[in-house]
Amino acid sequence: MNNTLPALVPFARPSGREASALRTVDIITGVSKHAEGSALVKFGDTHVLCTATVEEKVPGWMKNTGKGWVTAEYGMLPRSTHQRIDREAAKGRQTGRTQEIQRLIGRALRSVVDMQKLGERQVRIDCDVIQADGGTRTASITGAYVALYQALDHVKALGLITEIPFKDSVAAISCGIWQGRPVLDLDYAEDSEADTDANFVLTGAGKIVELQSTAERDPFDEELFLSMLALARQGCKELEAAQRKALGL
Amino acid sequence: MNNTLPALVPFARPSGREASALRTVDIITGVSKHAEGSALVKFGDTHVLCTATVEEKVPGWMKNTGKGWVTAEYGMLPRSTHQRIDREAAKGRQTGRTQEIQRLIGRALRSVVDMQKLGERQVRIDCDVIQADGGTRTASITGAYVALYQALDHVKALGLITEIPFKDSVAAISCGIWQGRPVLDLDYAEDSEADTDANFVLTGAGKIVELQSTAERDPFDEELFLSMLALARQGCKELEAAQRKALGL
Amino acid sequence: MNNTLPALVPFARPSGREASALRTVDIITGVSKHAEGSALVKFGDTHVLCTATVEEKVPGWMKNTGKGWVTAEYGMLPRSTHQRIDREAAKGRQTGRTQEIQRLIGRALRSVVDMQKLGERQVRIDCDVIQADGGTRTASITGAYVALYQALDHVKALGLITEIPFKDSVAAISCGIWQGRPVLDLDYAEDSEADTDANFVLTGAGKIVELQSTAERDPFDEELFLSMLALARQGCKELEAAQRKALGL
Amino acid sequence: MNNTLPALVPFARPSGREASALRTVDIITGVSKHAEGSALVKFGDTHVLCTATVEEKVPGWMKNTGKGWVTAEYGMLPRSTHQRIDREAAKGRQTGRTQEIQRLIGRALRSVVDMQKLGERQVRIDCDVIQADGGTRTASITGAYVALYQALDHVKALGLITEIPFKDSVAAISCGIWQGRPVLDLDYAEDSEADTDANFVLTGAGKIVELQSTAERDPFDEELFLSMLALARQGCKELEAAQRKALGL
Amino acid sequence: MNNTLPALVPFARPSGREASALRTVDIITGVSKHAEGSALVKFGDTHVLCTATVEEKVPGWMKNTGKGWVTAEYGMLPRSTHQRIDREAAKGRQTGRTQEIQRLIGRALRSVVDMQKLGERQVRIDCDVIQADGGTRTASITGAYVALYQALDHVKALGLITEIPFKDSVAAISCGIWQGRPVLDLDYAEDSEADTDANFVLTGAGKIVELQSTAERDPFDEELFLSMLALARQGCKELEAAQRKALGL
Amino acid sequence: MNNTLPALVPFARPSGREASALRTVDIITGVSKHAEGSALVKFGDTHVLCTATVEEKVPGWMKNTGKGWVTAEYGMLPRSTHQRIDREAAKGRQTGRTQEIQRLIGRALRSVVDMQKLGERQVRIDCDVIQADGGTRTASITGAYVALYQALDHVKALGLITEIPFKDSVAAISCGIWQGRPVLDLDYAEDSEADTDANFVLTGAGKIVELQSTAERDPFDEELFLSMLALARQGCKELEAAQRKALGL
Repeated sequence: MNNTLPALVPFARPSGREASALRTVDIITGVSKHAEGSALVKFGDTHVLCTATVEEKVPGWMKNTGKGWVTAEYGMLPRSTHQRIDREAAKGRQTGRTQEIQRLIGRALRSVVDMQKLGERQVRIDCDVIQADGGTRTASITGAYVALYQALDHVKALGLITEIPFKDSVAAISCGIWQGRPVLDLDYAEDSEADTDANFVLTGAGKIVELQSTAERDPFDEELFLSMLALARQGCKELEAAQRKALGL
Repeated sequence: MNNTLPALVPFARPSGREASALRTVDIITGVSKHAEGSALVKFGDTHVLCTATVEEKVPGWMKNTGKGWVTAEYGMLPRSTHQRIDREAAKGRQTGRTQEIQRLIGRALRSVVDMQKLGERQVRIDCDVIQADGGTRTASITGAYVALYQALDHVKALGLITEIPFKDSVAAISCGIWQGRPVLDLDYAEDSEADTDANFVLTGAGKIVELQSTAERDPFDEELFLSMLALARQGCKELEAAQRKALGL
Repeated sequence: MNNTLPALVPFARPSGREASALRTVDIITGVSKHAEGSALVKFGDTHVLCTATVEEKVPGWMKNTGKGWVTAEYGMLPRSTHQRIDREAAKGRQTGRTQEIQRLIGRALRSVVDMQKLGERQVRIDCDVIQADGGTRTASITGAYVALYQALDHVKALGLITEIPFKDSVAAISCGIWQGRPVLDLDYAEDSEADTDANFVLTGAGKIVELQSTAERDPFDEELFLSMLALARQGCKELEAAQRKALGL
Repeated sequence: MNNTLPALVPFARPSGREASALRTVDIITGVSKHAEGSALVKFGDTHVLCTATVEEKVPGWMKNTGKGWVTAEYGMLPRSTHQRIDREAAKGRQTGRTQEIQRLIGRALRSVVDMQKLGERQVRIDCDVIQADGGTRTASITGAYVALYQALDHVKALGLITEIPFKDSVAAISCGIWQGRPVLDLDYAEDSEADTDANFVLTGAGKIVELQSTAERDPFDEELFLSMLALARQGCKELEAAQRKALGL
Repeated sequence: MNNTLPALVPFARPSGREASALRTVDIITGVSKHAEGSALVKFGDTHVLCTATVEEKVPGWMKNTGKGWVTAEYGMLPRSTHQRIDREAAKGRQTGRTQEIQRLIGRALRSVVDMQKLGERQVRIDCDVIQADGGTRTASITGAYVALYQALDHVKALGLITEIPFKDSVAAISCGIWQGRPVLDLDYAEDSEADTDANFVLTGAGKIVELQSTAERDPFDEELFLSMLALARQGCKELEAAQRKALGL
Repeated sequence: MNNTLPALVPFARPSGREASALRTVDIITGVSKHAEGSALVKFGDTHVLCTATVEEKVPGWMKNTGKGWVTAEYGMLPRSTHQRIDREAAKGRQTGRTQEIQRLIGRALRSVVDMQKLGERQVRIDCDVIQADGGTRTASITGAYVALYQALDHVKALGLITEIPFKDSVAAISCGIWQGRPVLDLDYAEDSEADTDANFVLTGAGKIVELQSTAERDPFDEELFLSMLALARQGCKELEAAQRKALGL
């Protein structure tokens, strides 16, 4: 995308990456001895451990609906960040940010699962940030899909379902505006400096599951937003390829 | 917008409104004997009481920066909803939804305030939902701007600042997709049935402060999203007029 | 009562009211779209929204007793007061004062309901202070009776009970001692200055449901207490009239 | 008092006591090795350990006022009662009843202390119920006065104050209505059966500090209330004698 | 043990006791009107009230196992200590130390109960420290055994079990290292000065239930540890005699 | 040790290891981009991430003592275990087990640090269990020492201290009794079956820092305990070698 705009002013992201370049993405499966599905996802120095736990029951309000449920929890290890953050278990409450992110992960995954075909069982996803360098929520969604896929494959192998009940795949990536130009996949240093923080959750088929774009400093206009969406589409296509490769598909 | 699509299938929203029609909007100021600024905002049957409290100090991490801060809290009265919800004070914790909304309100307001001109003082906004019928977060932002304006006008009247430190105004509205077509300002019945739930926070100058669009059921495509954004632009323009009228501007 | 004491020293309450004068009382019903019963009660600048929610089940310890239950919760909006108070939901606990008041409201209402005739159902009363200027607990009880009446009338209209199961009506008012003389219905400014704070919960038939009289500064004697009780009787008679009028009885 | 009413119907309290008879009262001082003041108070089988802790500082909002403060906390051992109650520390919150009682104890003590003479120091009273058989709040107040007296005597002995800053003494007792007649100092069995539960906090000089009278079953009339007050006066006189004896005055 | 080491340097514990001397031990039974078993245990100035509550049900995870359960809770009265400690119920959480101690008490008691013979019922032990002077956890275990014995005797008397289901008795004592020599049963002053803090839970038959030995200052060697164990054996033998005497065995 | 007992009955641990064999131990340093010190320690399938954070301030009660402090926190990822455990942050409280373990880790580390030489700074250790298979607390201590060493080396490199203020090194290992014989380093399957669970914290010089030995099933005798201690000595020697190798010493 950034090739189409003749950059008279030299443009350089703090990370040295091109505007449309993801960080090195790595998705390692089978990292948990216990979980039904697991993936360690790395977006550069951001590392998130995603596990999937299958429970043969659903929350009370879903009983006897014949449908399943997928939910997620998110946490950061206290020293996953540059400055140590307080342990939420010790403080006795999850922050608003934590709750916001885990709700987002849950919605993203549910949007691509056929709950009727899943049947009355629940999959709980845990996304724990081992090391953070920006983009933990997008890495979480991208890795959680892989862990969920494996867990559902496991349920299928047990003969409890006849097919893996996905309607589509799902991945997520962030974009920001740097020196007035949209850039893909911000790391922490870039995120701190960027004007706008946007997160895109897209399906493998290119549909939109969730858009969030926030301007804490300066409100932005529609054109820039669409440029970010275009970058995100390309990034999610690359992430989908990484997911397929990790799953051996 | 909906005029451009020949509707062969008769189209009818549950509310009977046209696709691009807001509910009746009413913003009543001066409703609190105590607060420095206050507004009771009504989007149809959704009623939110917004108050602004000025404190002549900032949070610890902002001390000696010469800048101010704006923050928000949100709550729903237990029987503001169709089915009574548990009182968060009695449960001892705010839900993730509550925290998500109050963080959104705070970001929306901060995006249009010049914190340098505000000086080292904090304005705390309280948005309390007296009656809910869908769209409480967008009504909250729209009313909170009015309460904040009044509070800053009060600070100016005291001679503490020389101008009201707004860079722009801000309002918010929701959109959804109903029978495959975008509609503006969903009430509760519509929200329960709509495929997509989107919230738009826009400035008076038409800039985007925050976009959030979520598909819990079916992912959507870019074209529909842009149609919703167009509807939201028109809706926020009407809301801005209501804000100005309420403020006597 | 105050006519019987020749006042050589000119006597003036901060509010300018006579010793036996209530503030302007206003009880507006039908203020909630959702609740089975609702009343916005105003004692001058003290405004409390009371709603009643009917549940077709009782707490566990009452099951199979054939009897019903009435309970109450109380809260103050953060900026209902002169100085903003912290939101209890954000702090994660209700204060002792809040719990004391909501227990008082519940006891007051239960004293006039025939639980056998109510049958195995529970009514939950929510009293939320929109604006506070002294006397929020007495206004809450007075308004809660009206909301409860409406809710029980609603249950009767559904054919679930054959009569409204009240044994009597109930209202409440405060008294204090100002310049050595008893005065009725203290507002906030008066309450801060008065020597004694007393609350009286009385039935329409003039029976006593609850008396509370506290002297944080100087202990008082029986005679003054009886003078306050006499004032309270008169005040509650006026409140009962306002309740009947609001209910169209 | 009960002599004045010819009892044609034989009258017998569950406890076998006369209507105006206290349970055996015992106040033992010096029961804590560590506290500045302490008293184990027994009203029959109700045993409360009261300790007083002197701190040479006041709460933040009282600093530089030159005045002192007295506050109280209350708790029940889990098996102080017939059926074990959950430990509040394990549940993570104090009940409304606990908070109500500890606020009452604090108010009662503060009403007889001259805070100016106490000077900028705080006394914290802890009332812990070792065994409960009705009347724990009244026993607590009666014993807490003794513990507080000793603590203030200790402060005087240290030369920090020149006199014990009491304006009066304070004690408390309950009354109820049994078979239509007022009775003094209810034990648990009586309290469960009585129609009305009243608590009286009176000074040694006979002034009223706090009255609380509640009818959860049937509202009562003024005459019965005054009979209870008369009984309470007599009971508190006896309690005052027990306090003086315990303190060696 | 200390006789075997010729003490050239005069040796004196702060308490003046010999190295192998317990404080005066007193175990008083039947101190609670309500509990199925109770004991007030005194190790010198350390006084702990132990009560046992029998419940005819077990925790959910033990249902239908045919086995019983014994659990314990521990607390300190706020002014049981030299400096008042905050009330855990008011703080809303139990400290790690409290939880550690109550888990220890529960394990100690369970090690000597035959759960099969106890049958599907639970005994809850409450250990509440009335006055603390070091060794509250060892006194708690020693007293809790007595309260538990009485409660099980009570269950037997009711004909619900045919024998008291103990496999052995259990008691506990602390040791420390003072001036390089092991000493038994540290009081608070000694504990503050000792190099090592060890707690021993032993059965009447001399078996080890639990050993805990901690060197916060200087790590210690095996020989000293064995000397402490020898002292503890002797101390627990004396405690067992006191338990038998208290139980009239 | 197990060679000395002629094993007529064939003896086989569930893991197939010899009685005195550790699992494969692996300590990987430098695993955190952000922390001043970090180690991923593996005892077979038990994996714990240990990080050390240096703060240039001490807790309030240590100010102006010239001494430093070391403290630890512990947590388990929800699906680190065979069955998912609830996230403590979501429950709002740490379990007693968590608190017990983190207190143990802190004490173990403090016993080998010269706090005077550390100076007024605090090191916070976080031990987070990525995967659990028995022995998480002993792996945590063993890895935490390595992370702490690195952090102190970092402080020395900054010139803030002139030497690494360790008095000794520290490591920990568990033992149990399997078929009547002591075995070293239990994995989860063994731990569930073993009669006794013992944890030993020993210094490189062979001194004892902490002993904990618990018999929930059958009390044990001194001889077996000493056999376990002998095994632990050998195991900790091997762990110390692994620590030195990881640190390049």
